[in-house]
Amino acid sequence: MALLTRRSFLPATATVLASLPLAAARAPAAGRQGPGVYRTRLGDFELTALYDGIWYQKIENPLVRNASRAEVNKALTDAFLAPDVLPINFTALMVDTGAQLVLIDTGTAGQLTDSAGTLLDNLALAGVKPADIDIIVISHFHPDHIDGLKTKDGDKVFPNAEIKVPEPEWAFWMDEASLHRNDGSTSLHLYFLNARRIFRDIAKEVTRFTPGREVAAGITSIAAFGHTPGHCAFAVSSGRSSLLVVSDTARLPALFVRHPEWQPTFDMDGPRAAATRKAMLDRAAADRMLVQGYHFPFPGSGHIVRTASGFDFAPAMWRPLSPSP
Amino acid sequence: MALLTRRSFLPATATVLASLPLAAARAPAAGRQGPGVYRTRLGDFELTALYDGIWYQKIENPLVRNASRAEVNKALTDAFLAPDVLPINFTALMVDTGAQLVLIDTGTAGQLTDSAGTLLDNLALAGVKPADIDIIVISHFHPDHIDGLKTKDGDKVFPNAEIKVPEPEWAFWMDEASLHRNDGSTSLHLYFLNARRIFRDIAKEVTRFTPGREVAAGITSIAAFGHTPGHCAFAVSSGRSSLLVVSDTARLPALFVRHPEWQPTFDMDGPRAAATRKAMLDRAAADRMLVQGYHFPFPGSGHIVRTASGFDFAPAMWRPLSPSP
Repeated sequence: MALLTRRSFLPATATVLASLPLAAARAPAAGRQGPGVYRTRLGDFELTALYDGIWYQKIENPLVRNASRAEVNKALTDAFLAPDVLPINFTALMVDTGAQLVLIDTGTAGQLTDSAGTLLDNLALAGVKPADIDIIVISHFHPDHIDGLKTKDGDKVFPNAEIKVPEPEWAFWMDEASLHRNDGSTSLHLYFLNARRIFRDIAKEVTRFTPGREVAAGITSIAAFGHTPGHCAFAVSSGRSSLLVVSDTARLPALFVRHPEWQPTFDMDGPRAAATRKAMLDRAAADRMLVQGYHFPFPGSGHIVRTASGFDFAPAMWRPLSPSP
Repeated sequence: MALLTRRSFLPATATVLASLPLAAARAPAAGRQGPGVYRTRLGDFELTALYDGIWYQKIENPLVRNASRAEVNKALTDAFLAPDVLPINFTALMVDTGAQLVLIDTGTAGQLTDSAGTLLDNLALAGVKPADIDIIVISHFHPDHIDGLKTKDGDKVFPNAEIKVPEPEWAFWMDEASLHRNDGSTSLHLYFLNARRIFRDIAKEVTRFTPGREVAAGITSIAAFGHTPGHCAFAVSSGRSSLLVVSDTARLPALFVRHPEWQPTFDMDGPRAAATRKAMLDRAAADRMLVQGYHFPFPGSGHIVRTASGFDFAPAMWRPLSPSP
């Protein structure tokens, strides 16, 4: 192992070849990421994770109400992530039940950051047209979950889809009194206006469901309030297989699975969201459930493991779709 | 959280909708995995991980010389993998240095198992033709690393590529005396015959390098003997960025990163391979190196973290190719 020294990673000899006149490689660099489409089987269902990208959100203000910037940065660094930046991953889940093609949440539509907005490209790479989607289920009304329903010009993106939203989410965000009660908070006010932009002219086409009820054959909503007043997770079940879609109950695993008690400012009701998160992660770990997170790194599925101080996320191994043990 | 009960994951209400006559979803299930192409930037280089698949190898005999079947199965189960099956992931790495397009190892060519052999499909999806590859670097002569050089009919797959192999690897596998000395072991004998099948008629076109030497501008080989007599790892460096390609120094992280002292039977010199593995993982952890493993789950890159009993592998977060913090 004598060769495995620091020097071998910055080899002096590299300059010899590097200083020769450069030929051009036969193929130019691609300059863009490969497709973000990942499939799994769940019983008789086929699941497709669709990557929308990442928003690298500079942390300007306290991100966590009950943890210091230093603690947050240590957690980021421990996960080999840059300090002072929150990487917000976006991955939507499509469920083909055989009877229906269901999309859970819809991505950012490129309206939040240049480094996200690839959901429709990846849907096309998956061989599916927006018109093929039968049902869209919305977990909650934050922009990165609903913006994909509409183009910037206000046209519907999925012309044939029935749109299903949690009743308490609709009640909160579409209520005029709430809007005026909350207009002291700029971001909250923008969320109210955005929810109206997306839903007001299609209100009659939107179905509201009671959290806890089935939203499609094999997909049941789960009340997971706290992140927003009507935020829902989902259980997807086929045969003896099931998947817990946590939605935003836990976001970046390096921060909020490892420290479930942390209360990020994007959880509207911090204590309630933390209680929901801890209960859900505890249950997922105890029952060794397969989980999917909208803000987990693509493709977003894996398991929750209990640790001394909280939990950890164990990403599922990438597999061919062919039957596997 | 009352709704998050075991019942909500096997909802009785599912039967109501499921028992209705089934309509067909507007899009049929795809029935195959999405592309396995993942790109990253490393300084001025563009790296592309190319997925070849998984071989689910039934564990028939002791897999690890110094660990029991029960210990191995516990490690698999702890990682949410099926017991008694070794999932052998295959991911080759392509490096576009700007001057040259370099492929490190070549996949199984579909000659080992039906669930692997997608490298050329993924190369095409990456926009690269086999004729575009300038240099192929081989880590060692096991079939899953060299079989991709040839079709089943014995034709060269990469017509324009210079093939570079470790000198001690060539010396061991192509030597007639070795062949006859080792013909008591069936698998070893087959490896000898396979190395001859791949290399004998193109021997004049193969360049042998001394481990420790640069094999392309910015790519330096590292002697990592033990897995095979001439097995090499590689350091890829551009600007201030570097990547340690561990090759087969550590294979499935759930087993051999977590338990670096375990001596799998596929390491020809068990004690030497374990010493090489421990030293490399120790160094990678201490220096927080970005590492890539041929048998790590796709896309195969991440970091090594020291634990109380060994190491752990922290997969890198999937990112867009656009600049990120």
